[in-house]
Amino acid sequence: MDKIAITTGDPNGIGAEITIKALRKLDLPAEKIVLISNSAVLDFYGKLDKDYEIIEIPFDASNIKPGEITRHAGEFSYQSLKTVCELNPKAIVTAPVAKNALHLAGHKYNGQTEILQKFLAQDNQLAEMLFTAGGFRVLLLTRHCALKDINFTKELVVTKIKNLKQTFETHFGIKSPKFALCGFNPHAGEDGILGREEIDILIPAVHELRQSGIDITNPLPADTLFVKAAKNYFAGEKDEFDCYIANYHDQGLIPIKTVAADKTVNTTIGLNIIRTSPGHGTAFDIAGKNIANEEGMISAIKAAMNFAGI
Amino acid sequence: MDKIAITTGDPNGIGAEITIKALRKLDLPAEKIVLISNSAVLDFYGKLDKDYEIIEIPFDASNIKPGEITRHAGEFSYQSLKTVCELNPKAIVTAPVAKNALHLAGHKYNGQTEILQKFLAQDNQLAEMLFTAGGFRVLLLTRHCALKDINFTKELVVTKIKNLKQTFETHFGIKSPKFALCGFNPHAGEDGILGREEIDILIPAVHELRQSGIDITNPLPADTLFVKAAKNYFAGEKDEFDCYIANYHDQGLIPIKTVAADKTVNTTIGLNIIRTSPGHGTAFDIAGKNIANEEGMISAIKAAMNFAGI
Repeated sequence: MDKIAITTGDPNGIGAEITIKALRKLDLPAEKIVLISNSAVLDFYGKLDKDYEIIEIPFDASNIKPGEITRHAGEFSYQSLKTVCELNPKAIVTAPVAKNALHLAGHKYNGQTEILQKFLAQDNQLAEMLFTAGGFRVLLLTRHCALKDINFTKELVVTKIKNLKQTFETHFGIKSPKFALCGFNPHAGEDGILGREEIDILIPAVHELRQSGIDITNPLPADTLFVKAAKNYFAGEKDEFDCYIANYHDQGLIPIKTVAADKTVNTTIGLNIIRTSPGHGTAFDIAGKNIANEEGMISAIKAAMNFAGI
Repeated sequence: MDKIAITTGDPNGIGAEITIKALRKLDLPAEKIVLISNSAVLDFYGKLDKDYEIIEIPFDASNIKPGEITRHAGEFSYQSLKTVCELNPKAIVTAPVAKNALHLAGHKYNGQTEILQKFLAQDNQLAEMLFTAGGFRVLLLTRHCALKDINFTKELVVTKIKNLKQTFETHFGIKSPKFALCGFNPHAGEDGILGREEIDILIPAVHELRQSGIDITNPLPADTLFVKAAKNYFAGEKDEFDCYIANYHDQGLIPIKTVAADKTVNTTIGLNIIRTSPGHGTAFDIAGKNIANEEGMISAIKAAMNFAGI
């Protein structure tokens, strides 16, 4: 399908509202867009500006309960993702879902990325979470999990960073990208005094990656690593590194979101279809109040158009 | 002693150089300052602009080896801290030391804060690490340790945040400070799906703190929590929160350093003497090259003068 497909996410969150608002502001040709949603849900949260194609996911209007975590909403979120994968569009944009709603519906995934991985991955493909704000990019080596449960190996790090290089070359047109690697522990472990993940996992991975021609730093202290990236982002200047590689969720997302806020786009790479989504969540506290900010969704749709060459 | 005392840190790092440069730029009355250092080390890295009092810590000039981690340097760092604590100055400013040099010298501390705690703490006093950049402030609930070794309890969180409130009232003149608390896990654990530290430790701590009249949020997702603080810092506007409370090193230091860079001052509170230091480390890679940036040291000395009312 030669379109950008947009899922509107959890029907009790801000997803439908920000999709409607973003489309209105972007004013894209209607034939370039398909919505994976539900007309009752869309009508509840706003009014579409054009006659976009809508692929209907069943949802009873009586179950629209802004701010509530329900299994009906979780099932809708899951079915939307399943459907969009079957469509095979040029790129996918997803509005936020609630993991606990997915869980209530019996879908024990920790995020949308894991669901896309299930439906889209072929062979040994791995879905990866890349966050972008213009030229400021951050890859996460691990995904949504409890901080104490983070688990990674040298092999995993090597595979993910090789895939990252591939994506930069094939999708972003950046040959020989330069990568900066965060230490896992504070001060990058200080030679083992503050943890051994650098010595046991990251440094051996760096050696192997360099042998295959990848330009990557040794693990560097994460607290100071993003200072220059932030300055360059604000100045609109090209950064020294094409991508920063963080070991876990908050290590990578705190710097890019603190700096770029709503402009941060969550990009899933590594599968055949690139997917983007706003960097924020369902914002249940303001759902249904028509006060949600659509900037993140606008950035996500723009990035998807860009990656898809539309 | 009615002075600000400055230790110049590891003699193979940038400490002496940035101290000399900072004092020259600040142009303070010489009688307000005492240096805990060594004349040979100071002479090696630059020339003092005034006749400051110097309390000599033994160090053989032949052991000055910029960029090297040595036990001689570690011993010097340790003795400097011991001496400054005995002096009982109005405030302490410390240039950076190398933990692995301390360890080589047999001093198994993970940072200067721990050494100050040993020499300065009375009764049940706990040294706490507060990072400040103007009105943007971040407290760390845990200190330098491997990420997987982080260990904290409800009681610890309650005690630290009560002490924080006390410091705000007595040292900063801020009555009824407003605190924002980071979740430990990504997305603040999402109701237990991504970890239980929020449910088992942080939320019960918040309940207890509120009962004793402290204004503190529930644990909030750390990746989006600092967005407004960053905007307010850049705009020079007062933030909604007087202090952000992070669970571990990188969670608190990534946002403040990414935003405030060299202006970030490490402040030790909770002991009778307030201590400040620049937010950066020994920078061994540029030691002895006379290219180190003294901005962090300037910010640290200014903050110490401010806290000491000098």
